[in-house]
Amino acid sequence: MTIEAINFAGKLGTFAEPWSPRVIAEMNDYQFKLVKLQGEFVWHSHADTDETFIVLAGTLCMGFRDREVNVQAGEMIVVPRGVEHCPRADDECHVLLVEPRGVVNTGEAGGELTAANDVWA
Amino acid sequence: MTIEAINFAGKLGTFAEPWSPRVIAEMNDYQFKLVKLQGEFVWHSHADTDETFIVLAGTLCMGFRDREVNVQAGEMIVVPRGVEHCPRADDECHVLLVEPRGVVNTGEAGGELTAANDVWA
Repeated sequence: MTIEAINFAGKLGTFAEPWSPRVIAEMNDYQFKLVKLQGEFVWHSHADTDETFIVLAGTLCMGFRDREVNVQAGEMIVVPRGVEHCPRADDECHVLLVEPRGVVNTGEAGGELTAANDVWA
Repeated sequence: MTIEAINFAGKLGTFAEPWSPRVIAEMNDYQFKLVKLQGEFVWHSHADTDETFIVLAGTLCMGFRDREVNVQAGEMIVVPRGVEHCPRADDECHVLLVEPRGVVNTGEAGGELTAANDVWA
């Protein structure tokens, strides 16, 4: 694979659907995925892995069972394994996810917002 | 550990030295590190891991033995394991590194630019 610079804006321009992560790079057995958030997701957790959200644009409201944490452009948050969370974005928000290859967006919850995995931008 | 938003600008304000990565978060056995680049680093490689550079500000010129790749703010690059590289920044550049815990900045090259490892911002 060619070693090249990967441009977030360019990759974000290739898709519009919210809650539909697109892989843009791999590092060892981890993937970097761009995702557009709009509205409220579903409560879920990932039993086997932490999950990282780097906010590129907008504001991510990360709901936890006991509180909510706002994560803005230029900020990141790591959700530890096993911790229930529910992402929400009142206005469109762009996020770079970092997590091991194979992680499904809805974790153990499933449901209609479950996205196809390993789709590249 | 409290789950909280981690602000890049705030963490970048806590140190000035170039080529001195500061850990700001961990995800599984990986670390996120902020680093300021200024001038030219040393040629090195990491035999056991890929290494990710996410450029937050400025331009990173990543030298490879056969060419150079410019990586600008809003872009990232993954350097595969074993590939010799030499980062350079003509003007100060801010980068978010993602790599496994324990990776040393100069890889197998060593030398005076080798930074203390696992220093948190």
